[in-house]
Amino acid sequence: MIDIPSLVDQYCHGVLRTELGLGTFEARLGPAASTPAPGTTFFDTQTGFAVRRWCPPLLGLEPHCPPARYLARRRELGVLEAGRRLLRSSGIATYLVDTGPPGDLTGPAELAATGGATAHEIVRLELLAEEVAATSGTVDAFLANLAEAVHAAAVRAVAFISVTAAHSGLAALPGPPDPAEVRRAAGRCLAARRAGDRTADPVLLRHLVWIAVTTGRPLQLHTGDRDPGSLAGFAAATAGLGTDLVLLHAYPHHRTAARLAGIHPHVHADLGPALARTGARAAAVLAEVLELAPFGKLLFSSGADGLPELHVVAAHTFRSALARVLGEWVGDGAWSPADARRVAAMLAAENARRVYRLP
Amino acid sequence: MIDIPSLVDQYCHGVLRTELGLGTFEARLGPAASTPAPGTTFFDTQTGFAVRRWCPPLLGLEPHCPPARYLARRRELGVLEAGRRLLRSSGIATYLVDTGPPGDLTGPAELAATGGATAHEIVRLELLAEEVAATSGTVDAFLANLAEAVHAAAVRAVAFISVTAAHSGLAALPGPPDPAEVRRAAGRCLAARRAGDRTADPVLLRHLVWIAVTTGRPLQLHTGDRDPGSLAGFAAATAGLGTDLVLLHAYPHHRTAARLAGIHPHVHADLGPALARTGARAAAVLAEVLELAPFGKLLFSSGADGLPELHVVAAHTFRSALARVLGEWVGDGAWSPADARRVAAMLAAENARRVYRLP
Amino acid sequence: MIDIPSLVDQYCHGVLRTELGLGTFEARLGPAASTPAPGTTFFDTQTGFAVRRWCPPLLGLEPHCPPARYLARRRELGVLEAGRRLLRSSGIATYLVDTGPPGDLTGPAELAATGGATAHEIVRLELLAEEVAATSGTVDAFLANLAEAVHAAAVRAVAFISVTAAHSGLAALPGPPDPAEVRRAAGRCLAARRAGDRTADPVLLRHLVWIAVTTGRPLQLHTGDRDPGSLAGFAAATAGLGTDLVLLHAYPHHRTAARLAGIHPHVHADLGPALARTGARAAAVLAEVLELAPFGKLLFSSGADGLPELHVVAAHTFRSALARVLGEWVGDGAWSPADARRVAAMLAAENARRVYRLP
Repeated sequence: MIDIPSLVDQYCHGVLRTELGLGTFEARLGPAASTPAPGTTFFDTQTGFAVRRWCPPLLGLEPHCPPARYLARRRELGVLEAGRRLLRSSGIATYLVDTGPPGDLTGPAELAATGGATAHEIVRLELLAEEVAATSGTVDAFLANLAEAVHAAAVRAVAFISVTAAHSGLAALPGPPDPAEVRRAAGRCLAARRAGDRTADPVLLRHLVWIAVTTGRPLQLHTGDRDPGSLAGFAAATAGLGTDLVLLHAYPHHRTAARLAGIHPHVHADLGPALARTGARAAAVLAEVLELAPFGKLLFSSGADGLPELHVVAAHTFRSALARVLGEWVGDGAWSPADARRVAAMLAAENARRVYRLP
Repeated sequence: MIDIPSLVDQYCHGVLRTELGLGTFEARLGPAASTPAPGTTFFDTQTGFAVRRWCPPLLGLEPHCPPARYLARRRELGVLEAGRRLLRSSGIATYLVDTGPPGDLTGPAELAATGGATAHEIVRLELLAEEVAATSGTVDAFLANLAEAVHAAAVRAVAFISVTAAHSGLAALPGPPDPAEVRRAAGRCLAARRAGDRTADPVLLRHLVWIAVTTGRPLQLHTGDRDPGSLAGFAAATAGLGTDLVLLHAYPHHRTAARLAGIHPHVHADLGPALARTGARAAAVLAEVLELAPFGKLLFSSGADGLPELHVVAAHTFRSALARVLGEWVGDGAWSPADARRVAAMLAAENARRVYRLP
Repeated sequence: MIDIPSLVDQYCHGVLRTELGLGTFEARLGPAASTPAPGTTFFDTQTGFAVRRWCPPLLGLEPHCPPARYLARRRELGVLEAGRRLLRSSGIATYLVDTGPPGDLTGPAELAATGGATAHEIVRLELLAEEVAATSGTVDAFLANLAEAVHAAAVRAVAFISVTAAHSGLAALPGPPDPAEVRRAAGRCLAARRAGDRTADPVLLRHLVWIAVTTGRPLQLHTGDRDPGSLAGFAAATAGLGTDLVLLHAYPHHRTAARLAGIHPHVHADLGPALARTGARAAAVLAEVLELAPFGKLLFSSGADGLPELHVVAAHTFRSALARVLGEWVGDGAWSPADARRVAAMLAAENARRVYRLP
């Protein structure tokens, strides 16, 4: 048997502080901003079935009990106590938390306290741009404040993330925008903001990405389920600068992300959401990522957002999938048991500790 | 063991009425309009091996008997009796039949009678455009007749299909074309027809697709083995209109089709031809589709064209693949037996009954 | 048990003649021109683990022994003797050798002698263009010499390969360039060469590809890990000319390559490097290729470059993966044992013998 050590969750969000009903809970099981079709439910997904597999026993119920029963028990315990029981049985020792998404989610400190773990902040560039725009009156002030804000964030946070840069310009224009372009973009941003529009400007976002790259902090890029092969130009442009890139959410193009991680020393690939969202199929998806990626370049994450159940499901699914895949290879004689244990520890925590320079 | 109920085949064609020789039978085992390379045969494919696995026993022969022996037995029984035996052992209770492809294939009524089943028509927009063009003298008449023909078809048929729209304009231009454009296209069509050219005009096809969308009947789109991600714009443009879309033939991009089915309430994904054409690999391909798609959004089909053997192979392959995949997940404790039975019934028939409003 | 006969390796390179240290050996385990990230090693890849699985026993060591120990033993035997032991236990009877890559690698004759096998040359069009440019003073002479060189190569070699044409023009412009364009390209080439630039001109390369097509020798195209679907236009343009195309390195798009091999009688797909680089996952990747490709259109290769260990790993991995995949299908009753043995022989050697007209 392969023993999987405590996990570093290299990309997640906090959890909701409010009690949830069947509908509000269900909404968190599907893709963001989506709704189930009439006559169907997001409980009938791999994520829904995985939640019903792993979570009821942690609250004293039978696995696979009906959703309504699970939610009744969850409310009976209260959102705080249920969150505490769930997170503390996840086996996650360190959370890296994207504090960017809107909504009343717990921050790193609160997540750490609830989960009996440590936590660090990941700064979302889109949110930082919006915050700085709100307090800057002129283009000059805006640009100066932006640079300062990124460098200040680099001191307190362990990484940066951009959730939109990969599909709004970085693929076609991998280099930094020129200063005149940036000034025009900054002007547009301030004007748009006064008109109530808060959409991130693609030029300004590229500018921000390149400031972030100069800080030396790892930069996470959400590939938005698109082919990460489109980031080959950006990967080449940032090679040798000493800043690591981490590709998130590449499924169903996870094999391409794995390949990029093999070609570029500074590129890494995420293992998380693909596993958490594919439930009973997690071992198969994990095995695909393990085809071409060097084993030192893969990082576990939960990608969980809002529900502690999602942190739990990601962690349990990852551990059981990894133990199964590596166990089979050892059983076949393809890998040695010692190598399998070593690789398990790398994927679970050691690679993340190296990339994010965690204690 | 997972018990799979009778199937709704949500997309197929009729069968040939003529006796077939080795060459004419073999031609139906490969991709349309293709021929085997010299020194090779389409019997040496997963489809060929699957036909030899499932069909000989239904005609009283050993599984995997040589193709020549199987065809001799088929001729001995006669095409009608062989078709009757094959279709009646397929476990398909309802056929939705695309009546569009050229050639002397049985229609829905004849297929239903042969197979001891019920059948409904799917109207192919490309064929409807051609038929209306043949009986319309002016642009005005053509356009009026088109609209009338689509609405008449919506009364008698259960769905529309376009086999070319997805890769001839709908990806780049998801919205309806403007009226002036449509008039010009209609004029081009009539002129081209008089010159003997019957190719569907992309603008006219988009126009037809949008008329079809207004009828509320489900619209099937053949993605032509291309990335259905290119239809994201059309999916967004048709969201909330009350018309369901069904993506056909997405393999090898079936994971992307499954993902779209999760994002858009009105988008569904087909399970069929990928399974029928991959034979011994069907369980693996099916499992990939089951990663991200909500289970209420997946529909069985055979995609069979010309040979009743293809209806049989699709149905048997689907049932055995589904029983195997779900059986393994139940065995692992990942799914409950009750959920597995429920999902099996949804994929086999219930989802199709809901989407196509079948009795 | 499925017995796999001796192999034809339809695409490989020679081996290095120099003794290797840990670093120079490791560099050959990753992608070309890449280096491992600090704190990681290319030994921690499927390729690295596969080398440690299969090769130490051939030199008298335990499987999975540490890399340093393996390399010490390799040096103790000497590069020649180690190469002899490795290649002779690979089960490869015929090597088709791309003599194009730079560096001091053994040629076909030396590889054949070392491996106790036969070998044939594959001529790389990029290298041939460079050699002819070096000895041609004028555009007229250059173009005449090019045509002559290709036709001379077609006499002595079994195939041509282009490693860059697929992603430098052939996708967008599948037809032959017109003569005036070719003359301009030839002029540019000669001028660039005098300025020290040896990059292949895309127009000239397309010209060369089309000369190669006229010789009737199979043309191998390296798809550079990109979607071979982009070569559909070139496949259509070369249909019926009597020249076979072989798509190399399609992973992770190997299913698309397999589909093209089913659609076009003259298109074939390679099995090799995907298997050699995915180690413990080779059976799963092989099974994916076997979904849609006719079994007469798939060819084994090692893709090995520099290390005889890579020839060995590819061959052993292929044999064990094929035996496992086909063995499972026979066990399930999906394939007959006779069919499985027949398909194994086709993939291992017979298809290559037919395509390359080998004795």
